[in-house]
Amino acid sequence: MNDPIAGIGSGGRVTLAHGGGTAMRDLIERLFLASFHPQGFPVQEDQARFDLAALAGHGDRLAFTTDSFVVEPLEFAGGDIGKLAVCGTLNDLAVGGARPVALSAAFIIEEGLELETLRRIVTSMASQAAAAGVSIVTGDTKVVPRGACDRLFITTTGIGVIAEAHHVSIAAARPGDVILVNGPLGDHGAAILCARGDLALGVSIESDCAPLHDLAATLLAAVPQVRAMRDATRGGLAGVLTELAEASRVAVTIEEKALPLRPEVAGLCEILGLDPLYLANEGKLVAVVPQEAAEVALAALRAHPLGAGAAIIGRVADAGRAGDVTLLNRFGGHRAVTMPAGEQLPRIC
Amino acid sequence: MNDPIAGIGSGGRVTLAHGGGTAMRDLIERLFLASFHPQGFPVQEDQARFDLAALAGHGDRLAFTTDSFVVEPLEFAGGDIGKLAVCGTLNDLAVGGARPVALSAAFIIEEGLELETLRRIVTSMASQAAAAGVSIVTGDTKVVPRGACDRLFITTTGIGVIAEAHHVSIAAARPGDVILVNGPLGDHGAAILCARGDLALGVSIESDCAPLHDLAATLLAAVPQVRAMRDATRGGLAGVLTELAEASRVAVTIEEKALPLRPEVAGLCEILGLDPLYLANEGKLVAVVPQEAAEVALAALRAHPLGAGAAIIGRVADAGRAGDVTLLNRFGGHRAVTMPAGEQLPRIC
Repeated sequence: MNDPIAGIGSGGRVTLAHGGGTAMRDLIERLFLASFHPQGFPVQEDQARFDLAALAGHGDRLAFTTDSFVVEPLEFAGGDIGKLAVCGTLNDLAVGGARPVALSAAFIIEEGLELETLRRIVTSMASQAAAAGVSIVTGDTKVVPRGACDRLFITTTGIGVIAEAHHVSIAAARPGDVILVNGPLGDHGAAILCARGDLALGVSIESDCAPLHDLAATLLAAVPQVRAMRDATRGGLAGVLTELAEASRVAVTIEEKALPLRPEVAGLCEILGLDPLYLANEGKLVAVVPQEAAEVALAALRAHPLGAGAAIIGRVADAGRAGDVTLLNRFGGHRAVTMPAGEQLPRIC
Repeated sequence: MNDPIAGIGSGGRVTLAHGGGTAMRDLIERLFLASFHPQGFPVQEDQARFDLAALAGHGDRLAFTTDSFVVEPLEFAGGDIGKLAVCGTLNDLAVGGARPVALSAAFIIEEGLELETLRRIVTSMASQAAAAGVSIVTGDTKVVPRGACDRLFITTTGIGVIAEAHHVSIAAARPGDVILVNGPLGDHGAAILCARGDLALGVSIESDCAPLHDLAATLLAAVPQVRAMRDATRGGLAGVLTELAEASRVAVTIEEKALPLRPEVAGLCEILGLDPLYLANEGKLVAVVPQEAAEVALAALRAHPLGAGAAIIGRVADAGRAGDVTLLNRFGGHRAVTMPAGEQLPRIC
């Protein structure tokens, strides 16, 4: 078998030359396009094009979302920056009720990055995108001198289509609604902490990094009147719930004993004094549904491979001050959950 | 007047805290949203949404394109990274025949960036977008520790709509077609070289950074049968013409004496031994039109403020080897123009 990247680099590394000309064309054709379009690829325009009538066959609204990924380290238990970049943007489409259609991917590469590392990451992106049935249709490559960026940053942007029936919004929660999550909290944050290796904890926790579009579609099919969905990434569950409470002008209450948490993540939080409510996730969907649909929603989530650990974790209060989020603890007490003041773990995603 | 960024930062600089939580929300609301949506902004979902029927009212195809910007220095004569990020993506939409609709903007910020610098750049983005009639509708903010990136990188992604009548493609040039450009070559590359200050040349050249959507629309209105358009950025005119010749499987000939070039750029090229064919542009459109439409195309370009210096620079040969680009020099000789081997000026855009 030919090695697709043999001869691309110099000493197996990306060089400044790859930022343009024939060297960049080789890198793009032999690595990016060969991975993202294994069946062959058309002439590369500066833009991808989609038939609007075909898009309109899937719904009435186009969704459009972007995220940059700067995670450190690039590879960790359960994922890598490429998987994160594809899943993160798929998830931002999915939680708005959109069926993902396509992604763009823009790479900022530090001179000297090992081509083998880049290949693993690009392969990971390609396999996540293929599994989700979306194409990476357009992109960009920049190479910056050593020291101008830390190895690799990826920005993905996604487009998707929202079906007529669905109207989910972070501002749509109403008193009495029930709040669910699809599984244990904090796995991604814990995985990155472990992967950084500063802690010598002797535990390895896998990131929950996963594409949520199919889970979100399953939930919407079972409960078309889903009010709100949001993936709990930076800022964790606390970040999502405080945003929800503010945007919907409601008060929210969650129960500590209902929060799914892996013992190893709970242990890590205890040792380090971290609050799992604030730990990042990359495969966790917070959903708000009308009370009468709560059990159907829970059953739909649990029947999906990514929702086996789903739980009802709280509700939108009938009264209370708009924007307040309250945690009822195991001992019957309660405490206010506030939006974190800043980012506690830089480069978590 | 209140200072919108007073109190956002610590010592007037972006801190790691701005990567999440209330500090990020303040930065986003008080700087990004206040600049991009001065009339007020709706609840921020994780995605922007567009009515597909309304989009279909402007054409039959959606265009989608992305670019990362890593230019150094951040500010230079004639522009800054923000203007570049907006114009660059508008131009990638425009040269495909699309009417730009909206942009996303993802910021990767180094801890310690001066908030005043960020404000100038964001203001520049907002004014370019407003002048083009497009909104920056969604975005992302990441802050990385000192040393993990060089001050600021911006990735913009654009969506636009292509009208039924237009079918421009880098693969559509045909023998006999005429090649035009809207003005002098190499200004952006020369401006960045001067701005880096390494050369102590005592000249200041302004970047040609400009949004080309209106010029492209003007040309398409005058000559609906435009075959191909491409903005000549990294790789310069040589990069565009070699791509065109390869994609369209044609030979291309250009005349040196027909190439528009400012005396100061010509002088810089002479001193430094640079070839203006390879210098970057950020406001130059290369257009290919059928021979019978050449004069109409030239007149349409020249009647536009961004096309006053337009010229017919060459043609697609009736014969010759597919992929070949030939320059006829002032003395009647000719030389082959090849795609550059790599990027000669890292961080040019």
